[in-house]
This record gives sequence, C-alpha cells and structure tokens, in this order.
Amino acid sequence: MRSAEELIDRLDAGERRAVARLISWAERGDPRAMEVIRAQRERLGGAYIVGVTGAPGSGKSTLTNALTRRLREQDAKVGVICVDPTSPFTGGAILGDRVRMNELATDPGVFIRSMGTRGHLGGLSRATSMALRALDLSGCEVIFVETVGVGQSEVDVMRVCHTTLMVMVPGLGDDIQAIKAGVMEVGDVFVVNQADRDGARRTAREVNAMLDLSHAEWRPPVTLASALKGEGLEALWEALEAHRGYMEGERGLLRRVESAEHELLALAQERLTQHLKTGLATHAQGADLHSLARQVALNELDPYSALDQLIAPN
Amino acid sequence: MRSAEELIDRLDAGERRAVARLISWAERGDPRAMEVIRAQRERLGGAYIVGVTGAPGSGKSTLTNALTRRLREQDAKVGVICVDPTSPFTGGAILGDRVRMNELATDPGVFIRSMGTRGHLGGLSRATSMALRALDLSGCEVIFVETVGVGQSEVDVMRVCHTTLMVMVPGLGDDIQAIKAGVMEVGDVFVVNQADRDGARRTAREVNAMLDLSHAEWRPPVTLASALKGEGLEALWEALEAHRGYMEGERGLLRRVESAEHELLALAQERLTQHLKTGLATHAQGADLHSLARQVALNELDPYSALDQLIAPN
Repeated sequence: MRSAEELIDRLDAGERRAVARLISWAERGDPRAMEVIRAQRERLGGAYIVGVTGAPGSGKSTLTNALTRRLREQDAKVGVICVDPTSPFTGGAILGDRVRMNELATDPGVFIRSMGTRGHLGGLSRATSMALRALDLSGCEVIFVETVGVGQSEVDVMRVCHTTLMVMVPGLGDDIQAIKAGVMEVGDVFVVNQADRDGARRTAREVNAMLDLSHAEWRPPVTLASALKGEGLEALWEALEAHRGYMEGERGLLRRVESAEHELLALAQERLTQHLKTGLATHAQGADLHSLARQVALNELDPYSALDQLIAPN
Repeated sequence: MRSAEELIDRLDAGERRAVARLISWAERGDPRAMEVIRAQRERLGGAYIVGVTGAPGSGKSTLTNALTRRLREQDAKVGVICVDPTSPFTGGAILGDRVRMNELATDPGVFIRSMGTRGHLGGLSRATSMALRALDLSGCEVIFVETVGVGQSEVDVMRVCHTTLMVMVPGLGDDIQAIKAGVMEVGDVFVVNQADRDGARRTAREVNAMLDLSHAEWRPPVTLASALKGEGLEALWEALEAHRGYMEGERGLLRRVESAEHELLALAQERLTQHLKTGLATHAQGADLHSLARQVALNELDPYSALDQLIAPN
C-alpha cells in the first residue's frame, strides 16, 4: 500500500491490514492519512463510539470484551482502541488486560488497537481521533475506547466519544466522596460491575444519590452488571443506546462541536509546533527556538522575552 | 499587592504571601507574573530542583518530608510542590499525603504548594515552571516537586527538575521487568524506601542489574533508605548532590536547554491557542475556529481541510 488510492481500494475490499496501515500513517502524521480521510469524508460518521473508563481493576476490559461478544452475536463489526499509559507503574496490569482482549483478536469482525500515551502535546487525542476514523471507514458499527481515565490526555480522549461509560466496582465506601467531583462530570452512563459482589446495590444507590445532585439535562442511568458472568449486559446496552439517541439531538451536536474544536486546536498546535521547530512560523522574528532556549537555560534571557521573540505578542 | 513592583518589594521583605500571590498570578496567566520574572531574572537559578516520583504508596511524601526536615536542621529554605492528579481515582490517597505534608506547613522556612493536573494542554508544566521560579525568587535553596509519574504531563514536569529521584519499594518481584523501560529513562537517582522491609536489598540489586544494561553517561546510583525511621537519608542526599554536580557540567546544560525548549514550545502553543480562539492569528484566512468545528462536527468538512483554513500548511 503505497498510495492513498491503493489503501482506499483495499479498505473497500475489507482488508484488515489496510485499517492498520491507515492508523500507522495517522500516528506518524503521514500526509497520506489526511488524503484518505479527505477523500472518504462522506463515508464517515457511521460508528457509535463508546468510551469505557474506570479505576484499574474495575473490569473495563472484561466488560468491553463481554459487550463486544454480544455485538458479534448480532454480526456487528466492532473496533476496540486501548489507550494504555505506558507508564512504569501501570504497565503490568494493562499487559494483563491486553492478553484478555487478545482472545477476540482472532475474530475477523473485531479490530483491536493499542495506543501509547506518550508523545507530543495533544498527540494522544489526535492519534485516537484518527484511529477512530480509520475504524469508522473500515465499517465498524461500534467502537470502544478504553482508558484508565487518569490525567488530562485521557479526559481529552473521552471527549471524542459519543458516550462515556463509567465502570465502578462495589465497596468503594467512603472513597466515593473523594472521587465524586471528577466522576460526575465525565460519565454519561454508569455501570456497577462485579454486581454479584457484596455492596453492589449500595454502590449503585450511592452513585444515584450523587447524580441526583446534578442539574444537567442528561441524567446518567446507573446499571448493574457482571461482565464475567455475562449478566446485566442487555440493560447496560439499552442505557448506552438511550444516550446515543440523546446525542443525536441538538445537545449532542453542541458536544460534537466542542470536541471538533478541541481536535482542531490540537491539530493547529501540532502544525504550529512543527512550524516553530523548522523555523517556518511566519510569526518568527528571526530568532530560532534552539538558540532562544539556550539563552533561557543560561539565564541570559527570561522565558517571556524569549517567547516574544518566537511569536509576536497580541 | 496590586503591582509587580509591590510584589517584588514584599518578596524582598521575605513575605510568604508574596510567593503565594506570584504563583497564583502565574497559574492564571496574569501578565504581572511575567513582569516580576522579567525584572528579577538575574536573581533566578539559585535553587536546586529535585523531582520526587514513584508509584502510589512508595512513600514519596514521607521521604520528601524527611529530606525537608534534614535540610531545615541546616537552616536551608525549602519549597515543596505537589503535582496531584485531581483524577477521581487517586484523589483519596493524595489527600492523605497532603495531610502528612501539612505538618511542615507551620514552619516559616518551608513553602508548600499543590498543583492540579487538569487544565489546558501544556498548562501543567508551564504552571510548575512558574511556581518553581517564584519559590526560587523567594530564596528557597532546595525545591522538591512530587509527582506520581503517570502520564505525559508528569513526565514533562520532571523535565524541569535538575534531578529526578525515583522512589522504589521492596517486593516488586516480577513486576520490575514490566516497568523497566519506563523507569530507566526517568530516574537520575534511585532509592529503595522502606529499606527495613524484607527484600529491600534484593530490589536494590535488581534495579542495579537493570541500570548496568544502560550505556548512558550518567550511571544513576541506587541507595537504601527508611524515610519513616530517618535512616539512609545522608547517603541519599549525597547521591542527589553528586547528580547536581554532574548537571552543572556540559551534559547538564544540554538537558536544561532541552527543558527550556520544551517550556518555550508550551508557552508558544498557549499563546497561539489564545490567538486562534480570539481570531488574532495572522495565519487565519477569515474562518473562525467555532464555525469550522461546527462544519467538522456535521461532517460537512474534514478536519484537515478545516485545519488548512485555520492555519496555512507549510
């Protein structure tokens, strides 16, 4: 696959490798990825994108797995994007998740892709957006994006999803108070996983009580499920579909505009950074980034004066 | 404190509130913060900045606490910046750390500041850089920056430190293999904390064995300590000082230049984003961010064509 045209042909033929190639091009910032997306724009938008987030150990992967199997029984093509922090501290657990997901990797109707969280500023959500478009073009009807939800870059990733599913586990107890603020703003649908464990109903009640305090137009439903036993998946899927319907209205459009704004800003920052690094910025007044940085490092110049030499102030 | 001049006077008088105010200005992007830094540039650079990172529960705060007490015995002014993910999933533990640190909060020779990790792209490392300068100006001889080391933004924060101290705990066992890659590139000095626990020496041996595989010019030393019992702190401090000496050489300058480059890029991105949002970008060809985002959200335009309308391609 040398050209965008060839890749589009292979995508049309349903070749899995074409999807993988498109994502790779996108991750490297290869202009051919842009060419494909430009040419195929009108075919975009068919996929329903569900962000799956929750604390490590809450069973996000198992749940994604179970929902994927269910969709496969109905012959729907499914994409899964795992956003893994390649951090020293979480590497182990995530590797385990990957192995579990790989059971599905032999199914030709499922496409799984892992993304690292390291990279340039704004790079992760850009790469994820591109991977989502590639999977969308390949005919996936549903795409799950799994993140651990820690940090700004993961929050940015969730922004590109139609629906964010927040996975909780029983027995959070007092901790739930501490996590309240962060959870409330992120989840569109809540599920208490491992619902066969003690305290599942209490956790659901506590989450409901907190959600009652919010005055947002969309009231997130709270469901109970056991991913391992395959229980509660139908009700969960209905809750997701309800939010999908909501997102098709005017409110949903507002959110998609916001998400597009964010993506455009990230793309713009990336391009401008490239301009600055290669000295192409029309703003630049002659000084280059490296020599300015050296003066700042030697304390010969303060960073704000350096910035003014790099980009004119407004 | 209304003006930059007044704040500088109060900083000179050793007023703690002036430091806090300067950091607040910086966090809000108030131009008065830039004014102060510009005017006081020549007084900058006195502080030794140590990043303290490690997995949750490794005892970073206790260790920072113990090192701070030790420095206070020698009458050194100390600053502590805690970079807390305000994420739902770590909020609880970090709150506990804060309480422990607060024992030092009544000491007028210690300045403690917590920073959130949410915010605009590049915002965290910019805010941290500014807070470091404020503490530097206030006369802190040593500044600790404590992070959990998960995610790109925390890695960016560590970049602004002279020395990164990686805190390990005994009994990592097989996991250590999984975290190898990430840890190796980040730590300048390693300490196995809770050294009175079983397996501390084995963990130190394993870390040493991995470090032996690297061919970097600086070979990170590995020390043992028990922050709670106050043991091993002197050897740890000597190891930190050794790296500080190394960083004063040509290699250290390279790293400081790299860090300054990164900071300038973040500042430039922030400014350019501001320009784009307010339509001031000289690149803009008339189209504004919001209407382009709307077209992308409605799938009337692909994001790359939108980007070309926002910023000319190179």
